[in-house]
Amino acid sequence: MNTATSIEYVHGYSERESHRLGDQADTLAELLHEGTAYPAGSRVLEAGCGVGAQTVHLAASSPGATIIAVDHSAASLAQARDRVTAHAPGSEVEWRHADLLDLPFPDAAVDHAFVCFVLEHLADPARALAELRRVLRPGGTLTVIEGDHGSALFHPDGAAARAVIDCQVRLQAASGGDALLGRRLQPLLSAAGYTEVRVRPRTVYADRARPALVEGFTRHTFIAMVESVRADALAAGLITGSAWDRGIAELRRAADPDGTFHYTFFKAVAVNP
Amino acid sequence: MNTATSIEYVHGYSERESHRLGDQADTLAELLHEGTAYPAGSRVLEAGCGVGAQTVHLAASSPGATIIAVDHSAASLAQARDRVTAHAPGSEVEWRHADLLDLPFPDAAVDHAFVCFVLEHLADPARALAELRRVLRPGGTLTVIEGDHGSALFHPDGAAARAVIDCQVRLQAASGGDALLGRRLQPLLSAAGYTEVRVRPRTVYADRARPALVEGFTRHTFIAMVESVRADALAAGLITGSAWDRGIAELRRAADPDGTFHYTFFKAVAVNP
Repeated sequence: MNTATSIEYVHGYSERESHRLGDQADTLAELLHEGTAYPAGSRVLEAGCGVGAQTVHLAASSPGATIIAVDHSAASLAQARDRVTAHAPGSEVEWRHADLLDLPFPDAAVDHAFVCFVLEHLADPARALAELRRVLRPGGTLTVIEGDHGSALFHPDGAAARAVIDCQVRLQAASGGDALLGRRLQPLLSAAGYTEVRVRPRTVYADRARPALVEGFTRHTFIAMVESVRADALAAGLITGSAWDRGIAELRRAADPDGTFHYTFFKAVAVNP
Repeated sequence: MNTATSIEYVHGYSERESHRLGDQADTLAELLHEGTAYPAGSRVLEAGCGVGAQTVHLAASSPGATIIAVDHSAASLAQARDRVTAHAPGSEVEWRHADLLDLPFPDAAVDHAFVCFVLEHLADPARALAELRRVLRPGGTLTVIEGDHGSALFHPDGAAARAVIDCQVRLQAASGGDALLGRRLQPLLSAAGYTEVRVRPRTVYADRARPALVEGFTRHTFIAMVESVRADALAAGLITGSAWDRGIAELRRAADPDGTFHYTFFKAVAVNP
């Protein structure tokens, strides 16, 4: 775990967190993975696979490709392996315990790379993008998916709810990440030397007409993610316990029958020239 | 013009504004109008047609339908007529100078209704939705498209830029409107008695890979719209001249080669039961 100091995963590593990431990936899989499929025989690096929430979808969408799933947490890798065994049996996945910033591959070793919800946690995403370029063959593609909490927009709106979201943004910033990274994908990838950088918004919108999305995304992905940093936010003195509870209660109204919730993920596809 | 007191159009009525609305409609037409086409022979009410920015696209998408375009401004109607003559010649459009809240039609007079960028300017959108239901036949559809300035997200981000956008939101609120209405479409339409209310986000994202959108949307639609309220914002004491200029300069960086800009429109389709 030589990246323990370079990446502080703000959401933590609890059992509950692992479930959250699974829920999130399943609800969003179609939206996020649409358009991502690799030819049989290609070698695809998933950098920062975590607990395998995206790995199962990558493997399912690209039968015949080999997924090389890398993470700096041995515990996450073990969970990822279990998840893939359960949900995408028979898929071709190699597991590597390694540092994103120092990948154990020679230059141009993989055909494509896929990175989801990873750059937002890194203190130096440019360095990770450079390392990914190193291991990508010329002409290979990089796909990056990241959120941007600035896109969280909900009804009823409220200052208390916005304050708890802001706690999450500040905690992520304090640990070297950037919860507002999505909007920066284009300049980040361009500056790292990738070409043909195409970024597309993937907007989730949930209201009473989409109860599964209200449940799976508004409640069990976004609000659950914000709720998971309560103790850290209080410990850091960012908010009082009562203001926190008021904010969460306010935010939960977005999942009520008259509530609505909007969030945009940014998906970039670029070429290593 | 019996609605002069009920609707204060925050963007004003200048020549330049008319051009802006034209640019906006053309750039966004595909995004906003996709999926909207009415059968030949149907009577479609466009309530609040303004200068006809959407009317031309409505007419073009629904050849054979009759568009009944209503606005409370005679000057806007004249411009709308010119625009349709120039851009959608031969289309079937009836022009009516009337109040949205007191439409000159009997009950159940039209098959469908279309409303774009109108509710956000009304002090009582619920009343307008009720009046639209009155003139819609049972089983007829209502389509509503509105923006939500809370979705404006850009890189580089900056407090000065956010302050000028906030001036626009506050001015619109002061004149009885709501620049954050998009997120409320679902509860508004449901409360007005419409059924099968389906709201979908239509997200615009512009960066260096889409120069026409940077020009047509970021610069000449969104930033131009914010810029158009400078005098009002200063007169209302919402901001100083220098803070305004700093904010606009900051916002314009979103249209630079390394900048990005994101905005979500909300499109609702519902049925009059």
